[in-house]
Amino acid sequence: MASPSTSSDSPSTTRGTTPGSTPGTLGVWFLGARGSLATTATIGLGALAARLTDETGCVTGHPDLDPRGLASWADIVVGGHDVDTVPLAKQAERLVAGGVVPGILAERVAGELEATEARLRPGVRAGEATDQRAVVEQLAGDIREFAAGVDRVVVIDVSSTEAPHDAGADAATWADLEAAWAAGRAPLSPSSTYACAALLAGAPYVAFTPSPGIDVPALLELAADRGLPYAGSDGKTGETLVKSALAPMFSTRALAVRSWTSINLLGGGDGSTLADPAARESKTGTKRSGLESMLGHDVPGPMHIDYVEDLGDWKTAWDHVRFDGFLGTRMTMQFTWEGCDSALAAPLVLDLARLTGRAVAAGETGALAALGFFFKSPLGSQEHRLAQQWDTLLAWSRECADRVSP
Amino acid sequence: MASPSTSSDSPSTTRGTTPGSTPGTLGVWFLGARGSLATTATIGLGALAARLTDETGCVTGHPDLDPRGLASWADIVVGGHDVDTVPLAKQAERLVAGGVVPGILAERVAGELEATEARLRPGVRAGEATDQRAVVEQLAGDIREFAAGVDRVVVIDVSSTEAPHDAGADAATWADLEAAWAAGRAPLSPSSTYACAALLAGAPYVAFTPSPGIDVPALLELAADRGLPYAGSDGKTGETLVKSALAPMFSTRALAVRSWTSINLLGGGDGSTLADPAARESKTGTKRSGLESMLGHDVPGPMHIDYVEDLGDWKTAWDHVRFDGFLGTRMTMQFTWEGCDSALAAPLVLDLARLTGRAVAAGETGALAALGFFFKSPLGSQEHRLAQQWDTLLAWSRECADRVSP
Amino acid sequence: MASPSTSSDSPSTTRGTTPGSTPGTLGVWFLGARGSLATTATIGLGALAARLTDETGCVTGHPDLDPRGLASWADIVVGGHDVDTVPLAKQAERLVAGGVVPGILAERVAGELEATEARLRPGVRAGEATDQRAVVEQLAGDIREFAAGVDRVVVIDVSSTEAPHDAGADAATWADLEAAWAAGRAPLSPSSTYACAALLAGAPYVAFTPSPGIDVPALLELAADRGLPYAGSDGKTGETLVKSALAPMFSTRALAVRSWTSINLLGGGDGSTLADPAARESKTGTKRSGLESMLGHDVPGPMHIDYVEDLGDWKTAWDHVRFDGFLGTRMTMQFTWEGCDSALAAPLVLDLARLTGRAVAAGETGALAALGFFFKSPLGSQEHRLAQQWDTLLAWSRECADRVSP
Amino acid sequence: MASPSTSSDSPSTTRGTTPGSTPGTLGVWFLGARGSLATTATIGLGALAARLTDETGCVTGHPDLDPRGLASWADIVVGGHDVDTVPLAKQAERLVAGGVVPGILAERVAGELEATEARLRPGVRAGEATDQRAVVEQLAGDIREFAAGVDRVVVIDVSSTEAPHDAGADAATWADLEAAWAAGRAPLSPSSTYACAALLAGAPYVAFTPSPGIDVPALLELAADRGLPYAGSDGKTGETLVKSALAPMFSTRALAVRSWTSINLLGGGDGSTLADPAARESKTGTKRSGLESMLGHDVPGPMHIDYVEDLGDWKTAWDHVRFDGFLGTRMTMQFTWEGCDSALAAPLVLDLARLTGRAVAAGETGALAALGFFFKSPLGSQEHRLAQQWDTLLAWSRECADRVSP
Repeated sequence: MASPSTSSDSPSTTRGTTPGSTPGTLGVWFLGARGSLATTATIGLGALAARLTDETGCVTGHPDLDPRGLASWADIVVGGHDVDTVPLAKQAERLVAGGVVPGILAERVAGELEATEARLRPGVRAGEATDQRAVVEQLAGDIREFAAGVDRVVVIDVSSTEAPHDAGADAATWADLEAAWAAGRAPLSPSSTYACAALLAGAPYVAFTPSPGIDVPALLELAADRGLPYAGSDGKTGETLVKSALAPMFSTRALAVRSWTSINLLGGGDGSTLADPAARESKTGTKRSGLESMLGHDVPGPMHIDYVEDLGDWKTAWDHVRFDGFLGTRMTMQFTWEGCDSALAAPLVLDLARLTGRAVAAGETGALAALGFFFKSPLGSQEHRLAQQWDTLLAWSRECADRVSP
Repeated sequence: MASPSTSSDSPSTTRGTTPGSTPGTLGVWFLGARGSLATTATIGLGALAARLTDETGCVTGHPDLDPRGLASWADIVVGGHDVDTVPLAKQAERLVAGGVVPGILAERVAGELEATEARLRPGVRAGEATDQRAVVEQLAGDIREFAAGVDRVVVIDVSSTEAPHDAGADAATWADLEAAWAAGRAPLSPSSTYACAALLAGAPYVAFTPSPGIDVPALLELAADRGLPYAGSDGKTGETLVKSALAPMFSTRALAVRSWTSINLLGGGDGSTLADPAARESKTGTKRSGLESMLGHDVPGPMHIDYVEDLGDWKTAWDHVRFDGFLGTRMTMQFTWEGCDSALAAPLVLDLARLTGRAVAAGETGALAALGFFFKSPLGSQEHRLAQQWDTLLAWSRECADRVSP
Repeated sequence: MASPSTSSDSPSTTRGTTPGSTPGTLGVWFLGARGSLATTATIGLGALAARLTDETGCVTGHPDLDPRGLASWADIVVGGHDVDTVPLAKQAERLVAGGVVPGILAERVAGELEATEARLRPGVRAGEATDQRAVVEQLAGDIREFAAGVDRVVVIDVSSTEAPHDAGADAATWADLEAAWAAGRAPLSPSSTYACAALLAGAPYVAFTPSPGIDVPALLELAADRGLPYAGSDGKTGETLVKSALAPMFSTRALAVRSWTSINLLGGGDGSTLADPAARESKTGTKRSGLESMLGHDVPGPMHIDYVEDLGDWKTAWDHVRFDGFLGTRMTMQFTWEGCDSALAAPLVLDLARLTGRAVAAGETGALAALGFFFKSPLGSQEHRLAQQWDTLLAWSRECADRVSP
Repeated sequence: MASPSTSSDSPSTTRGTTPGSTPGTLGVWFLGARGSLATTATIGLGALAARLTDETGCVTGHPDLDPRGLASWADIVVGGHDVDTVPLAKQAERLVAGGVVPGILAERVAGELEATEARLRPGVRAGEATDQRAVVEQLAGDIREFAAGVDRVVVIDVSSTEAPHDAGADAATWADLEAAWAAGRAPLSPSSTYACAALLAGAPYVAFTPSPGIDVPALLELAADRGLPYAGSDGKTGETLVKSALAPMFSTRALAVRSWTSINLLGGGDGSTLADPAARESKTGTKRSGLESMLGHDVPGPMHIDYVEDLGDWKTAWDHVRFDGFLGTRMTMQFTWEGCDSALAAPLVLDLARLTGRAVAAGETGALAALGFFFKSPLGSQEHRLAQQWDTLLAWSRECADRVSP
């Protein structure tokens, strides 16, 4: 990881404005910077920068993806917000104990963790904000301060999933939102508060959770106004990833899926958040919509997300698919997926930071639909099929690369 | 199904030579016409023609696939060779008892089965041929006779898998083959004997099994000489189909597959053939090559095909995938596939007949690489990824449709 | 099946009172006589009596179980109550279509079904009873009428699961119940109403569902007063059966089970009843208690029962067990069970009829704890381990056999 | 672990001969003392003695098993033979890296490992012995030397599985064996050579592998002659353990098992040994016999043991059971077992040492049939059902306890 300049007089002459020049330093600002996912990403980034690990799991390391103009691992700096205050070093210990991160790696990047610790700022909890405008300004100030030390910043929401939230008429337009604030109301959910702060600080926003975030009319208007790109939402890391590879198989082979049952067992922080039925509703919604889109019809079948504390950062999912073949012959497929969510998601958020950073350099604005490959609910796209998303990502990646490194 | 004209004076003026005209009647000549697969296809074709069943499982019924110029179900006629002599009606009873075909359907297409029965001719067994050239001529004669009653014929090999066979120098060129025959030698395996007969009769050849068939230099030369297309090999119907959907997921997500174990349990005729280690070798060879091509490296792990008599026409496959994620985190995926091979394969061979028939009309020759979607070992293509094969199939299908129905 | 005498002057001299004599005819009175389970049992009984099927699935046909004094299949007669009015012949058609019962069997026992149809009487729905005492008397009258034609009757509840129901102080004693009735109250749930009727008619009662049934103080008092045995509750047919075989393995090997997750997918009538959360609660309660008893401690983990209409009479259960071994090593086991509930349960209710009938002859009263082998919540026993239940059943079976056939 | 006396003048007056006295020190002599299993057992024993871990996985810690007269963990000392020379400390590192043993435990018992290291002696390889009698004497000498420092010794074979071996007429009786030796022949396989040495040194012998070991007429005669007990063979730790819990379920419920398929994926040393077809044959033989005995009939279905290097000390097994229920209804069950073989087996070999040590004190001789609970091929017993084996073990355990601690 790069050591960011510590003041605002960073040597702008070295920034990546010259075609073919180095992309410069990239700042990743995590919302939820002390969580399992962000901590794994931070440790992993340190390990990649120091060549202590390889690029397994990193899509931007794939030989078919055009890497021109992507920030190098060593040029990426992490900062972020969190309402939690447990030190990163403690979080790292927990991940080592849980088998997510090798102890030896955590030890060797301890210095990086300490440096990152100094760049973390307190977050804001739901319901705390008495003056939402002031909160937004404060959060934006934190991001601006961080931005001063790097060439480019990408804000990524990796915090706990919120319950569904309707900001309503108060956030229908930016003017409405300002009026609501002026009237002492606080229409934004915490994730949208952060998204607003990111945009005000001039940073693109990436939603790795299904929380509302930027997906509120007033904020989409703000993003358009500032010419900022954004991407999301809800990282596609496990069982839904498998669905997006399998459902097209049933569809293109004209096999009739009669029911598709899913059960997801999660421990750890994500699981305990999802033990809350409201938060779970956010999650199952994004999981189901893609399946029905890919199959072209409603598909009955329960979809469970359960908290099983003992599983820690590991997730086990079982899916059962009942389908009919020719002449109505009844058949089934089932699969079990046993993965570590943090290890699956961490390289993807680093990928998203690199790709979004380059997209800004390439002049992209609005919803980055070509990043749908990473998400359960792709903003700007109705395509859920993994292979088609991959082809789209590769093509867009070449375009961006051409523009920044002709 | 159409009633073919019974003599060679079929009204050639009605054949599909005029652009935009009806595609005319299509004859499907099955090698292994009394087997489970061909019998299921024959019953299913009757049911489709009479609108007793829907197009579930039929790729050519997919809304995204251009149907212009495809023979309608009611215009397709079945004939074929088989060394077995058990009547089709008996085979149908067996399939009903095994739960592959609904009894009511078998009853209602009994007339069609009887008509097909009259169009079946005795096949030739390995080792029987004392004069291989004479055998080829006799088989070709059967096909020519059948062809006289329809507008177009496609020959499809759905017989039992042969052991690997090397026709050697005797089949290096067509001249070599003729010389070998003249010298009283019989270099071709039975499947290649049939393939040779098909070509001599002017029919395109489709290999739905991994048997050598047309894949012999002398026969490829013959096909080129006659301007005939061909396709194959080894229908991708079950566990390998799933692999071709899942392996690209691991690859594009940069997950490192460390081992991939497969076990296939089969009863029925296919299973008992594969209890023979030599035939099994043909099969596991085609199954493995695709996986390693999709993942880009060797993948250790056993691959078993076992005969479990009690399973009848049903197949159960279990696959276990060990992969590493970011920072070397160990994860696994496993799946179980429980399908009926005949019901999965039957609509595909009908699809192949329709698509290959149209390809001839569209002037296609040589290996039909765009049909790789259907095969474990696609002739003319190195692409094994299902989604890419699908895109290729759709594009080619539009091209063919444009040519025959502009 | 026997043809029952049609009047009360049945030749009592032939009844099984003489040691060593034939056990006589046995009447099975099903509560829910038109459901999938009862219909399968009725068809199966006809098939067993006519030797059209073998004793697969029948515990009383096991070579280790002492058969002396058990009614022969040909000597068993079926009658029953049901609120449903769809004819048995129609129910049989549905089971044939669903693949539960072979069509040929259903045809050959059509006469038996018709004879049974004539012995079915209308049941009573929850909330219908304005005078609960009168309802009980009417139901008891139906059973008495049936009993007049056979040597012995066993009443078995195979109707849909009720929601949990607390009969309260009104059913604390038989006197309380009579007082409540006199005051115009109706404290019993439908299943308890039937149980009361059975006892008043002098018949032992077997609860194959988790509904309250006989498990109400006033009714237990009545059973004791009449010297009648009873058994239950909630047939152990699928996933819980497997648990009762596996949990002792973990326990005796001192492996520490950390979580046990279960998901049950059911179609058909049972599934749709259980789509009602209250009824589901009855079911998951009996499923969980046994597991914790066998393992000796609380076991976290979700337990789902879901309705998936498409599955029909088939059930798929998936269980996931996380356990620790020596030195805290983390391990897992998972299993998938794909069974047909009606086919699993039908022979067991016939077994229970035979065993309970013999128990009456052997002078047994009160809770038949030795029948715990058949139940999720064994009345009169805390033992849930299948193997120990089996040993107990065999020993008790020998005792009963000795008493009735010394 | 106890520190054994270092000379033969150990205070015999303190040995456990007085009823009610302490059981004294117990020496465990491992054949294959540097393997994964023995090393895990040695580390685990140190951890148990120091109360760094609990008794999870230890059958002798089960509350239902009578512990009177069992050596305490702190009174057990390990020694052994091995042909391998890699130090125990290195083996421990490998186990830590593979996730079998927590690193912290390995560190804290490093002293014990070093002490054990000093008690290990070189083993003998197949084919090395030019004078088999001399080899036996040398091995016996090593065991005698170890025995001098403890109150009692139990020899346990945990070495790699040998190929099947027929010692033939040369080992029909002890006299035959001596004659063969005198004639310069070497009829015993290595495992039998060690078993012979154990008996000559006066130690009971436990076969945790399927190698021939003591199961040779001449050696059984020797054991009888010396009044020594023995037990075996082939530890039942994973998939076969599950079978012994599940098969009785199918049997007692009268369900007809039509096929039972097993595939076992193993890495590590055990797996690579079993990549040798001859050794694998030893293993599948013991696995199959029990299943057919429990079900009462032949059961078709493949049984695979495959080496998958990447799995290390972990084993994944998949079993698929096809069974018929009432009226021939077809059903299936499948399970996946993911366990760590060394962690499963290590506490069992410690259990066997404690139980066999107490058995000697209780005056037991010959095959210890009551230890069948631990084995795939129980010597002295035809019982394979886990629950019945457990009941037998508990009863015998009480008897032994009564005799040594009345």
